[in-house]
Amino acid sequence: MNIEDRNERYSYLHHLECGRCSKIYDADVPQGFCVCGAPLLARYDLKAVRNAIKPSEIAPRLPNLWRYHELLPVRLQESVVSFGEGMTPLTEMGEFGASLSLSRLFTKDEGLLPTGTFKARGAAVGISRAKELGIKRVAMPTNGNAGAAWASYAARAGMESLVVMPADAPEIARAECAIAGSRLYLVDGLIGDAGAISAGAVANQGYTDVSTLKEPYRLEGKKTMGLELYEQLGWRVPDVILYPTGGGVGLIGIYKALQECIELGWLVEKIPRLVAVQATGCAPIVKAWEQRAEASLAWENASTVAFGINVPKALGDFLVLQALYGSGGCAIAVTDDEILRSQSAVARMEGMFICPEGAACFAAVEKLSQSGWLNPTDEIVVINTGTGIKYPDTVQVEIPTLKKGASLPFE
Amino acid sequence: MNIEDRNERYSYLHHLECGRCSKIYDADVPQGFCVCGAPLLARYDLKAVRNAIKPSEIAPRLPNLWRYHELLPVRLQESVVSFGEGMTPLTEMGEFGASLSLSRLFTKDEGLLPTGTFKARGAAVGISRAKELGIKRVAMPTNGNAGAAWASYAARAGMESLVVMPADAPEIARAECAIAGSRLYLVDGLIGDAGAISAGAVANQGYTDVSTLKEPYRLEGKKTMGLELYEQLGWRVPDVILYPTGGGVGLIGIYKALQECIELGWLVEKIPRLVAVQATGCAPIVKAWEQRAEASLAWENASTVAFGINVPKALGDFLVLQALYGSGGCAIAVTDDEILRSQSAVARMEGMFICPEGAACFAAVEKLSQSGWLNPTDEIVVINTGTGIKYPDTVQVEIPTLKKGASLPFE
Repeated sequence: MNIEDRNERYSYLHHLECGRCSKIYDADVPQGFCVCGAPLLARYDLKAVRNAIKPSEIAPRLPNLWRYHELLPVRLQESVVSFGEGMTPLTEMGEFGASLSLSRLFTKDEGLLPTGTFKARGAAVGISRAKELGIKRVAMPTNGNAGAAWASYAARAGMESLVVMPADAPEIARAECAIAGSRLYLVDGLIGDAGAISAGAVANQGYTDVSTLKEPYRLEGKKTMGLELYEQLGWRVPDVILYPTGGGVGLIGIYKALQECIELGWLVEKIPRLVAVQATGCAPIVKAWEQRAEASLAWENASTVAFGINVPKALGDFLVLQALYGSGGCAIAVTDDEILRSQSAVARMEGMFICPEGAACFAAVEKLSQSGWLNPTDEIVVINTGTGIKYPDTVQVEIPTLKKGASLPFE
Repeated sequence: MNIEDRNERYSYLHHLECGRCSKIYDADVPQGFCVCGAPLLARYDLKAVRNAIKPSEIAPRLPNLWRYHELLPVRLQESVVSFGEGMTPLTEMGEFGASLSLSRLFTKDEGLLPTGTFKARGAAVGISRAKELGIKRVAMPTNGNAGAAWASYAARAGMESLVVMPADAPEIARAECAIAGSRLYLVDGLIGDAGAISAGAVANQGYTDVSTLKEPYRLEGKKTMGLELYEQLGWRVPDVILYPTGGGVGLIGIYKALQECIELGWLVEKIPRLVAVQATGCAPIVKAWEQRAEASLAWENASTVAFGINVPKALGDFLVLQALYGSGGCAIAVTDDEILRSQSAVARMEGMFICPEGAACFAAVEKLSQSGWLNPTDEIVVINTGTGIKYPDTVQVEIPTLKKGASLPFE
C-alpha cells in the first residue's frame, strides 16, 4: 500500500445503522430517522481508517474539527461549510477545583466556537453533509442556540432555513437567526410545541427536518468534542466528563467517539465516567437513571434558567442512558439557585463567564465531590457548552452612574 | 550552541523605548508611558530570537497566541494568565468578495476569542505581564469590550480591577465586568470622561493605569494578530489589511509585528497596505491622513453605532499614521448606514454575525473596491474585531409569535 492509496479518502463513512433496532440504511441519500422511530447512527469503515491514519499524523492539521475528517460523514473536502470551528481550549479551573479539594479540574470552553456555543459543531457537519446530499431547505425547532448555529451555517451554504423557537428562548438567538436570513417564528410554548409547528413545514413545504437526532449528522459534529478532548490530553482520556443534558446529543456523541477510538485500537484505557447533568426543574434522564430505566418519561411543567437543557423528553434518551450505564457514570440534577451560584463562583474565581448550562455542571461537580462520587485526584472535564455573553439576564447588576468629572469613593 | 542554550528563554524582551522620543526604559519594573507623554514600545533581542527559533519550529505549538512567546514580554511561562486565546480562524468571504469582483477576500474572526472580541489579546498579555511584575490592582476606562476582557483576565490572575465606561457602552460589557468581580462605574459621557475618572483612582487609590497605550504590554498582545496572519498564510503576508480604528492599538501592533519579522529576516516581501477604517461620526485619523498630518486633532461631538471606534483622540494616533504612511495604506470613513448594511450583507451572504466595527471594514472594502484603490486580485484581510452577539441592538427584528398547534403560512 503506497501513500496515495492510504490518503485517498476524505471520509470513511460506510452506512447508517438504527441506534435501537440496528436496521441498515444507505448513507449516500438523505435519510431521517429509522422506521422504528429511533435515531440513525453513522458507521465508518474503521478497519480502513486504522490503515489510513495514525493519531500522530493528525497533529499537524489545522486546529479545527475537520482534522478528524476520516471519522466524519462529509465525502469531499470541497463540501465543507466552515467558520473554522473546533479545537476549543481545555482550560484548567485551578481555583474552583481547589475550593472543592479537586486537583485536576478542567473545562472545555465551547463558548469559543462560532455563534458562541457547541451547537456550531453539529451545524457545521450537519449542514455540510446536507449540502453535499443536495438538500436546499432545512427546518428545525430549537431552544435558541441550535437554531442560531444552523441558520448561520445554512446561510453560508446558500441554503434556506426555517426555525421555530419558544418565545422564552434567549433573545439574542432571534437576532442571530434573523440577520442570517432565516424564516423565524416564536411559539408560546416549549420546544415540543416548536417541533410540532416545524414538522408542519417539513410535511407540507418541502423542508428537510434537521431536528435533534432526526437526521444522522449533527451527532457526528458533536462527536468531535470527544475526539478533541482525547487528542488534547495527549491521546489519553480523563476520569470523568460532565455534560449538561437536554437532547443529550453531545454526550451520545462523546460516547460514540470513545467507542470508535476503541475499535480503532487507539484507545485501550478505561473510558471516562460520563455524567449527565440536568436541572431539578427538568430532570427526565436523572429520574430514569435512578430507576435504571432504559428510557425516560416526558417531564411535566419543565422549567429552568438553563434554557438549553429544558427538554422534557429527548428522542435519544435511551442512548444517553446507555452511555451512562456503559461508562459507569451517573445522572444528577441541580437547582436553578445552585446553577446561578456556580456561574458566579466560576466568574469570580476563574474569570470565565460561562453559560447557565455549563454552570449546572460546576454545581454538579460540587455535589459529586461532597458525596464522594468524585475523588480528589480524578481528572475531571466539564463541557461548558456556551459563552455567558448569550445570557445577559443571568447577571443581576446595579451599576452606579457618575457625572462627568466625578471622583470615585474610596473602597 | 546546543539545543538547551537555544531554547532557554521564554521571552527575549530587552527594554522599552518611547515611540516618539526614543528614550529607553527598564522593562523589568512596572512602567507607564514616557515622560514626553508618548507610549512605550517593547523591544526584543531579535538577533537572539533569530538564533533561537525558526518559523517552522513554531508550527507544532498549541494553537494560541503564546506560541509566539519569544516575541512576547512575559518572562516565565508560569506567569501566563490564559483562557487559550488566539489562532482565530482566517475565513474566506467568497460570496461577499465576488459581489464586489474581489477574488481573495478573507476575514480574521476575532469574535472567537474569550470575551468575544480581540480585546482578549491585549488583556491576556497585559495582565500576565502585570502579574509577573507584582501589580495587584488595575484601572481603566473603556468603551466596553476592553473592560470586559481586562476584568476577566484580572479575575483569573487574582487581581483587582476597576473599570469606568460610558453609560452608552454595550450593556453586555456591564454583566461581564460585574460577574468577574470588577469595581464598575458608568459615566454620563464619552471614553475621555471615563478616563478622567479612572485617572483619579490611579492617582489616589493605588491602581495601576492600564488604559490604552498607557502601559506597554497590551500592544504586544495585539501584535499577535499580525504574527498569526503571517503564519496562517504560510509565512506570507496579504496585500491589504483593513482594521477598524479607535485607539488603533491593533493596527500599530500589526505594523510592529511586521517590522519585527523583517528585522528577524523572516519577512522579505513587501508589507501589506494597512487601512484604518473609521466612522464618519468620529474620523480624526482619516482627517489627519487626508492632510498628511503627523497627529490627529480631537473630534468634536463624536458619535457612531460602532461604539468601539468612538474614540475622539487616540494617544497612539501618530503611530497609527506612521503605519499608514509607512505601508502605503490609507484611512477611510464610512457612515453608520453603510456599517449596518454591510453587517447585514455579510450575515446573509456568509452567515457570519460580525460586530459593527468589523462591518465598517466591509463597508470600506466596498468603497475602496469601487474607487479602484483595491484591485480585483488583491489578497485582502478584514479584521473582524468581535462577535455580533455582543451587539443585539444592531439587528432590528419583528418575529411573529404563534400559538401552540399553529401551522405556518406558505412562503
